Amino acid sequence: MEDAASNTVTAALVVVGEEILSGRTKDENIFYIAGYLARIGISLREVRVVRDLEPEIVTAVNELRPRFTYVFTTGGIGPTHDDVTTDAIAKAFGVPVVVDPRAVVAMRQHFSDKDLTPARLRMASIPEGAELIDNAISRAPGFMIGNVIVMAGVPRIMQVMLDAVMPRLAKGRPMLSRSVRIDAPEGDVAPGLSELQLTHPGVQIGSYPFFEKKRLGTYVVLRCADEGKLTAAVDALWTLIAKERFAAVASEEA
Amino acid sequence: MEDAASNTVTAALVVVGEEILSGRTKDENIFYIAGYLARIGISLREVRVVRDLEPEIVTAVNELRPRFTYVFTTGGIGPTHDDVTTDAIAKAFGVPVVVDPRAVVAMRQHFSDKDLTPARLRMASIPEGAELIDNAISRAPGFMIGNVIVMAGVPRIMQVMLDAVMPRLAKGRPMLSRSVRIDAPEGDVAPGLSELQLTHPGVQIGSYPFFEKKRLGTYVVLRCADEGKLTAAVDALWTLIAKERFAAVASEEA
Repeated sequence: MEDAASNTVTAALVVVGEEILSGRTKDENIFYIAGYLARIGISLREVRVVRDLEPEIVTAVNELRPRFTYVFTTGGIGPTHDDVTTDAIAKAFGVPVVVDPRAVVAMRQHFSDKDLTPARLRMASIPEGAELIDNAISRAPGFMIGNVIVMAGVPRIMQVMLDAVMPRLAKGRPMLSRSVRIDAPEGDVAPGLSELQLTHPGVQIGSYPFFEKKRLGTYVVLRCADEGKLTAAVDALWTLIAKERFAAVASEEA
Repeated sequence: MEDAASNTVTAALVVVGEEILSGRTKDENIFYIAGYLARIGISLREVRVVRDLEPEIVTAVNELRPRFTYVFTTGGIGPTHDDVTTDAIAKAFGVPVVVDPRAVVAMRQHFSDKDLTPARLRMASIPEGAELIDNAISRAPGFMIGNVIVMAGVPRIMQVMLDAVMPRLAKGRPMLSRSVRIDAPEGDVAPGLSELQLTHPGVQIGSYPFFEKKRLGTYVVLRCADEGKLTAAVDALWTLIAKERFAAVASEEA
């Protein structure tokens, strides 16, 4: 839901991904989608990776869609027996799956009549009432129904679908972010950061340890949609760093 | 839960990861843990990435722990204000957080008395009744309570904790896996694969499209804990490939 107070637009992501859970494939979509949404002011709040099983997808989508402005899904909309996402989304919304004539037209741009086999025509079948999402690569579309956006799992195809659906989405104020690398372990930085968080409640302050050349250090990441509040908190962090005599640099890794 | 019929040991993973959701950090732990568990015969069934907020962690853990043999968590057990996982797990189990003398002893191996600040001693505080998990790198331990295994988020530290807890876990029969790369799009392979799945119900058959040099192809992955059943399904797949005259090779990407 849009958060009335802060006008925040939120999202969850459901990755339909037996291949991720089995350890076969390293997911690339979570990182891409998280960064993409952050840049357009949509705050990704939860990700679930579930098996390619209809009941698991139905449960995840129905738990998440009342809680967030949008729910994105990746994977499971191809032509094979293990592609069950479309049926699951239809079940989640209580509607039938129907062949969409616009999807058939789109797919004729890519496939000859001979190649438009019954298996491929499954990819032109979408939940009744859904809107299509263009796929500029292989033409079999994604779709949007209610606040749920259903995309392919192949990263290149997911990415063109995200570009295609983006103009239709509500956007918020993008989070601004600044990052400082401190060459001191988190334990030394912790007391000052706690105080900084108390005195700057509107700024989200994250502390991320790293381990490099056998030494622990800390990235401090400050995030806020309001430039003025963010700058005040960053200034206060540098005052803290000077007082504690930490070695530190502003970091590009925002 | 252990699946009585197949003696399957299952797991879920909760990634406490504001930095993943914000797009700052590319998660490395999901892929590592998925592969690690697969090799020791534990079937990872679901992953959730949640914000660094106590109620979100409590909800995820309490929803998942009755459903799976184990629930692993990564992240949020450091010394800073945004490390709330330990408190959340204690709340999920309805127990207090207490300073564990064994954890203090372990941390004295790494920290001088002067460096054992109140912030660091927070890392020696664990839910009452939990068992410690060694951290050979920076000594602040993880812990296991009930069927929940709580680990650090820094990949190197998470990995030594996984090694440390592994001997205590029930293991199942590892899934065996074979993969075939077919240079034909999924739509052409789909009808044969559907039939293959029907005639080999005990074997999990996954179909994963790829997009390379502007052409779509298909990896078919067959998984089963039983070598004989797996071999029979692989043989049947090669018969299908020959009949359809697909170009195909056995793949290392199992």
